[in-house]
Amino acid sequence: MSVEVSDLPSGPLDIYRNKASFNWKHMRCFIEGDDIMAFKHKVFQTLENDPVFARRPGEDIPMDKMRELTFLRVKQLFCYDLLPDDQFYANPWTYVILNDCLGMYDWAVSAKFFLNKGMFRNTVERSGSERHHKYLESVDDMTFFGCFALTELSHGSNTRAMRTTATYDAITQEFVINSPDFEAAKFWVGNLGKTATHAVLYAQLLTPDQVCHGLHSFIVPVRDPKTLLALPGVMVGDMGKKLGQNGLDNGFALFHNVRIPRENLLNSTGEVTPDGRYVTPFKDPNKRFGASLGALSGGRVSITRMALVNLKLALTIAIRFSATRRQFGPKDTEEIPVLEYQLQQWRLIPYLAAAYALEHFSKSFYMNFVEFQVGLMMRDKSDRQSELGREIHAMACAAKPLGSWTAQKGIQECREACGGHGYLAMNRLGDLRNDNDPNCTYEGDNNVLLQQTSSYLLSCLQHREHNNGNMESPLHTVDFLNDFHQILETKFTASTEEECMDPAVSVAAYKWLVCFLLDESHKRLQQQRSMGKDEFEARNNSQVYYCRSLSLAYIELTCLQRFYDLTRAEDTPADLRAVLHKLCGLYGLWSLNSHMATLYQGGYLSRRQPAQMIQKAILSLCAQLKDDSVSLVDVLAPPDFILNSPIGLSDGQLYKNLWSTVMQGPEVLQRPSWWKEFCSHKPQVGSLQAKL
Amino acid sequence: MSVEVSDLPSGPLDIYRNKASFNWKHMRCFIEGDDIMAFKHKVFQTLENDPVFARRPGEDIPMDKMRELTFLRVKQLFCYDLLPDDQFYANPWTYVILNDCLGMYDWAVSAKFFLNKGMFRNTVERSGSERHHKYLESVDDMTFFGCFALTELSHGSNTRAMRTTATYDAITQEFVINSPDFEAAKFWVGNLGKTATHAVLYAQLLTPDQVCHGLHSFIVPVRDPKTLLALPGVMVGDMGKKLGQNGLDNGFALFHNVRIPRENLLNSTGEVTPDGRYVTPFKDPNKRFGASLGALSGGRVSITRMALVNLKLALTIAIRFSATRRQFGPKDTEEIPVLEYQLQQWRLIPYLAAAYALEHFSKSFYMNFVEFQVGLMMRDKSDRQSELGREIHAMACAAKPLGSWTAQKGIQECREACGGHGYLAMNRLGDLRNDNDPNCTYEGDNNVLLQQTSSYLLSCLQHREHNNGNMESPLHTVDFLNDFHQILETKFTASTEEECMDPAVSVAAYKWLVCFLLDESHKRLQQQRSMGKDEFEARNNSQVYYCRSLSLAYIELTCLQRFYDLTRAEDTPADLRAVLHKLCGLYGLWSLNSHMATLYQGGYLSRRQPAQMIQKAILSLCAQLKDDSVSLVDVLAPPDFILNSPIGLSDGQLYKNLWSTVMQGPEVLQRPSWWKEFCSHKPQVGSLQAKL
Repeated sequence: MSVEVSDLPSGPLDIYRNKASFNWKHMRCFIEGDDIMAFKHKVFQTLENDPVFARRPGEDIPMDKMRELTFLRVKQLFCYDLLPDDQFYANPWTYVILNDCLGMYDWAVSAKFFLNKGMFRNTVERSGSERHHKYLESVDDMTFFGCFALTELSHGSNTRAMRTTATYDAITQEFVINSPDFEAAKFWVGNLGKTATHAVLYAQLLTPDQVCHGLHSFIVPVRDPKTLLALPGVMVGDMGKKLGQNGLDNGFALFHNVRIPRENLLNSTGEVTPDGRYVTPFKDPNKRFGASLGALSGGRVSITRMALVNLKLALTIAIRFSATRRQFGPKDTEEIPVLEYQLQQWRLIPYLAAAYALEHFSKSFYMNFVEFQVGLMMRDKSDRQSELGREIHAMACAAKPLGSWTAQKGIQECREACGGHGYLAMNRLGDLRNDNDPNCTYEGDNNVLLQQTSSYLLSCLQHREHNNGNMESPLHTVDFLNDFHQILETKFTASTEEECMDPAVSVAAYKWLVCFLLDESHKRLQQQRSMGKDEFEARNNSQVYYCRSLSLAYIELTCLQRFYDLTRAEDTPADLRAVLHKLCGLYGLWSLNSHMATLYQGGYLSRRQPAQMIQKAILSLCAQLKDDSVSLVDVLAPPDFILNSPIGLSDGQLYKNLWSTVMQGPEVLQRPSWWKEFCSHKPQVGSLQAKL
Repeated sequence: MSVEVSDLPSGPLDIYRNKASFNWKHMRCFIEGDDIMAFKHKVFQTLENDPVFARRPGEDIPMDKMRELTFLRVKQLFCYDLLPDDQFYANPWTYVILNDCLGMYDWAVSAKFFLNKGMFRNTVERSGSERHHKYLESVDDMTFFGCFALTELSHGSNTRAMRTTATYDAITQEFVINSPDFEAAKFWVGNLGKTATHAVLYAQLLTPDQVCHGLHSFIVPVRDPKTLLALPGVMVGDMGKKLGQNGLDNGFALFHNVRIPRENLLNSTGEVTPDGRYVTPFKDPNKRFGASLGALSGGRVSITRMALVNLKLALTIAIRFSATRRQFGPKDTEEIPVLEYQLQQWRLIPYLAAAYALEHFSKSFYMNFVEFQVGLMMRDKSDRQSELGREIHAMACAAKPLGSWTAQKGIQECREACGGHGYLAMNRLGDLRNDNDPNCTYEGDNNVLLQQTSSYLLSCLQHREHNNGNMESPLHTVDFLNDFHQILETKFTASTEEECMDPAVSVAAYKWLVCFLLDESHKRLQQQRSMGKDEFEARNNSQVYYCRSLSLAYIELTCLQRFYDLTRAEDTPADLRAVLHKLCGLYGLWSLNSHMATLYQGGYLSRRQPAQMIQKAILSLCAQLKDDSVSLVDVLAPPDFILNSPIGLSDGQLYKNLWSTVMQGPEVLQRPSWWKEFCSHKPQVGSLQAKL
């Protein structure tokens, strides 16, 4: 399939669009390809044409109404069946793109849909067996609605410490699900607040002999699908308002000895026989635990992408705003667009470069993950498959923090860069910030996750020592550690501003940085151990300034390296290389700039000149990309209906769009219903002073 | 007056409270003093005891209801008359404390109250004359309700470019107020959305000879006080939902040749005679403009404080949460409070140190401002008074960015540090972030304001050169520039971690940093000029990495220096010095850490050791302050009713409070009203595929 990309409406943005150094349609086509462009067009058109998805920017919708609307929209998605299985298998990337598209519309819709059709269904499919297939059908026709219940009120990060129990009763051949107290209530479960009929629930499995076999997952009915009333013994409810994504009903559930059939155990990692014996294909309970949580690993890959989508929307709004908002000028008589100010460029354009880097990274990383998943399905037991799993895990545990924090900071910068108008709800920067926030928290708190990455890198270092510097990881992200000692000897050599703009300079600096931080982290850990600290404490005391920085530097390097490779790849069109090269150069230097102190500290840089050159190069690249920036966001931007931000629409009619949207507000010009409270019931000043 | 500070309820926080190195009541008493403690107690009790101020955490209140509630609360404040004039004059700090207290309750209430009783009333009083006194009375008994209308739809920062006109008609002796088009509509005006009857409106004054005399302020009636209906020719309305502070009705107004009496011109800076001649005591129109906007200067001082209040609330929540939330531990059987993790300490405790530094700074700075205001009222024409004005302006233009950004980042860190529970609306971290956001924007965008500070510093440097290094500013914040050249020669000399903890080390480093950045900024500007750039462009191209960093470093130094002086002041109680000294040391090093690259770049630091020592010292200070941190937030925290965050209450019963608040939610356990949409009207999967 193929689709014609429509021209954007002519208007104040033409000034910049006409100055762009590249054709934005070529760029979009290069990044997405015809099939994806056609698919996105179909999804966007579907939403725009259907009144169920109608919206008014900045509308003040009560929480329960938002939950209803979101449910109705999800139901409508079942009718559209936008991504039938055959299309998904033909191109798994379409799955991510569907999430992108729905998320650009509203993350709550996307979350509500995928928590049921993705997370619940996939877990049942992968962790269950033949006997659970009926649940898949019931999800597919919406007889059931599912949720994924792991987190408890008092436990999130420490998943092993979950306290809900599933005790097997051999007499009735049932599991008894029980929450020991309210602190063990399942909490934060998306879809559980109002709609879920069934939960994939994680609980400690106990056999009749009172032996605990660790955390397992079970299918637990929570509401009657015919009435949506809670089932006996289940106290299930809605957690209330969140900072964002209020269309999604997050909920809690407390179980009071609720009985479920033995067969509801998702038994791919362990089974209880009718007479109550526990059997498992895994000998090591740690391995079993890992495999049982394996279904989670895709979440982080996907969150990295979701955060990027938010950043792209925010940048579209802020850059179009900056290109049309005029303030001050060299003469009193004429004002210039705020995008012309070096400061405004420096605030926004590096994030645009980051968005392009993350665009390529999130896609290529997802493809790596698909490869891994295929291996899992094929029951590939090779060393490569297990090494691939470890490398992807390490990458994902840093990619999610990188993506979510870059988006968090970028959206905040965009909000501030749009001044007061950025504070108006209708312009959506608040929603983007609020909806992006959980990306920093769920599927593992960013700071906690980063420890996984550094552990992997430290183990690579150890492996390298034992194998005389010979290592090759499946995705090659750590192969450069073969030259660990040589790299540590390198110094910064660029001698001109122009030279710094070459991404190779940043890549080299990052390799040194990762080696340096790895070396320092290793030493720090050794020192802690030699001081007699146990492993737990030694690790805890090696995060700040060491392991944490190491993990971030590693993933920034990986992201930069992949982007750099793209700019030089054979099938990258010649007319796009120049601008991609600049974006890559800027991303590298700007990211590196946050590690400047370490570069000096470790002696990679010395004297004043290098930092000055790097900073000059950053500002020059911003200035060079300034005239391209509107077209660069045109590439990333969804249609106006989806973007839903008057100050960021594609016609650039900032004030007209803002004004007419304000005028659409309910009772915008009417006096308040409580006007008599002002006009007739005047306060008696000081009358209540006696009460003080 | 005096008040007994109540003990805090016993509970899980006792573990830390019992380990504190100081008495929190002594600290509170030292910081606030008896009178302020009694005043705060009175205000807090008043709000808590009055059902008009009742609240439920996390409630989902529709915007129009929030506006009504906020209005009713403001009206109630008139009845209480919490701060009669005599009390204000006895201690002007009480005014700030009242704003603190109301803001801790809800910033929208505070803003709505003070925009009318403060901003509107003060501007009329200061910019008007005898003939305007009737308006003051009408504000005081709430016959009128005022607002301050400067910003227009298409102009914010560039105030001089406002396009609303006030043309004098000598025949009727009236001014004709007109908006040339909708882009010149007054916009973002607090109170104008639903309630204001009168605006102080800024417009270009034109005499009948068509000469424009620049921006002047006028009292313009916009709604009939008897009906709250818009007056003819005034199109006035509500802007709609904002990211936060939705109790405040921000509005817009478009004027279609609206006539107001000649006397409505606020005439302290210029007057039009009945026959239409313009007369002014100022010869230089720039000076007149400055004086006419002079009423604004207090805003930035006050915003610095408001941001700090938000930070204090967020820290109270996050630190109490961290002291009671347990996750992981050295053994599987016992979990430790997350506050025990070095990483969590490093995320939160430096912000606590910043809060203490800003607490003292914002108070002492307000007192400087009061001194300046007294001079204004006394019509002090001395050089010192005008120098004081310049210095305060320069400080305020950097203090607002420092305060608002520190709060912005600190609240975000607190939000993330509380994990999922920090994302629940009832815990208030979202509201704090949303309500703090405008502090970065109004009364001048932070980045734009910072230019004023660097201009002042550059002019100080110039003045110093012309006067052979002899300068003394009224508040002595720039006196160290006398030793400009000597300071540039200094190097970092501390040789142990312990030595680094002495704030003197940070102060010395900051002095070098400010001198270095001043020198670099000066050179950068010269270089730009020598390249033929005009002044406008030269300045614009000298902000990033130069002037902007300079302004921030200067205000950080000022804040640090004042805090350091406090720790050594004679009347600082002996039992509090140790903990204040640690907080000061931490604030200095942590702030300095963000400039580490510059310190290396300029050669103040060299080799690996200094940065390592500084980082070790930061971590050690965090660890040392960890056991004090709960008591340190107890000092800053308002009563639980005001804090309004289940996870941050003073009894530390994190889960009980959270659970019972969740259970208070409306229809928390009920099935949704739209349950049949799930149960009966099932989607026909794929039925709409044909429409794709």
